Amino acid sequence: MELLKKRILKDGFVLEGQILKVDSFLNHQIDVELMWEMGKEFHRLFDDKITKVLTVEASGIAVASITALNYKVPMLFAKKGARKNSGNELYSAKSFSYTKGEPYELVVSKKYLNKDDKVLIIDDFLAHGMACTAMLDICKQAGAEVVGIGIVIEKSFQKGRSELEKTGIRIESLVRVASMSEGTIEFLNE
Amino acid sequence: MELLKKRILKDGFVLEGQILKVDSFLNHQIDVELMWEMGKEFHRLFDDKITKVLTVEASGIAVASITALNYKVPMLFAKKGARKNSGNELYSAKSFSYTKGEPYELVVSKKYLNKDDKVLIIDDFLAHGMACTAMLDICKQAGAEVVGIGIVIEKSFQKGRSELEKTGIRIESLVRVASMSEGTIEFLNE
Repeated sequence: MELLKKRILKDGFVLEGQILKVDSFLNHQIDVELMWEMGKEFHRLFDDKITKVLTVEASGIAVASITALNYKVPMLFAKKGARKNSGNELYSAKSFSYTKGEPYELVVSKKYLNKDDKVLIIDDFLAHGMACTAMLDICKQAGAEVVGIGIVIEKSFQKGRSELEKTGIRIESLVRVASMSEGTIEFLNE
Repeated sequence: MELLKKRILKDGFVLEGQILKVDSFLNHQIDVELMWEMGKEFHRLFDDKITKVLTVEASGIAVASITALNYKVPMLFAKKGARKNSGNELYSAKSFSYTKGEPYELVVSKKYLNKDDKVLIIDDFLAHGMACTAMLDICKQAGAEVVGIGIVIEKSFQKGRSELEKTGIRIESLVRVASMSEGTIEFLNE
């Protein structure tokens, strides 16, 4: 997605530890008009009959909501860790945050995901693929069909995509970052 | 907002401890088309020149994003707790979660809020008003003008509104719950 590549080159920057900082438009301050364009693009890429868009709190919520608005279907976000008010009827799966350096649990209420659902998983980043793997696990527990995985920014130099491809599920990333050596962002030529 | 009152009566239920459970459409599974209507209503209520919509992660993000989409301005969400990648240039304010029974810190990057901003604060619930008070504190630190506070569901039997009204800032709630005694939800007559 050219619009997004340009925006990353204009406003993104690289931090130590292969971190791409895009919090001016993607995951702290949110450019909602850009999100609308992303949602349209996901809709174009996955034109299947989707019943639900699934993401993880917190930084996936904005793009997943606006994508779901394009499909006119509900968005469901997995919560991190069991909550006092969650009730006992939860699907759960373990994940790991490389940013925070700690494991965490993702939970989804059993009421909102079932075998009739056709799910589009949306997330802001794909790096090691831990969050997506946990969401796939939750969909499997629910017996829901995962139609595809839509990623805003993929770090193609990390193992996430190759891990997820083993499942046979279609993955579409709006941009694929090939390298960020010495602070220079290079995209994969496709 | 009649549409929202009807939805709360249809799909909301009351848990012990004065908790109104609306996670089928507001804060776990999200009815994004309802959010769109809410966003339009906030836009109608606050027709001022807004430069930014501010909320708190995670459950405020969906409604704030879609409200910001109505205004065509960026949405900014305050994060809970300092992050490894946040950098040092943060506004921060203390808050308290009655749901979790613990204090937490809200942080916003100084890059994304300043004295030229006219802010609409949006949140899903107003109960004790702790999150809104912390957001007001952050806006004050930034020198930003808070044009108003837009709430999806206000628990009018708790002290949040009266605390916030002391600031003189306009507060609009889409619905105001007067009581939830014995599991029956009653709205404030206005």
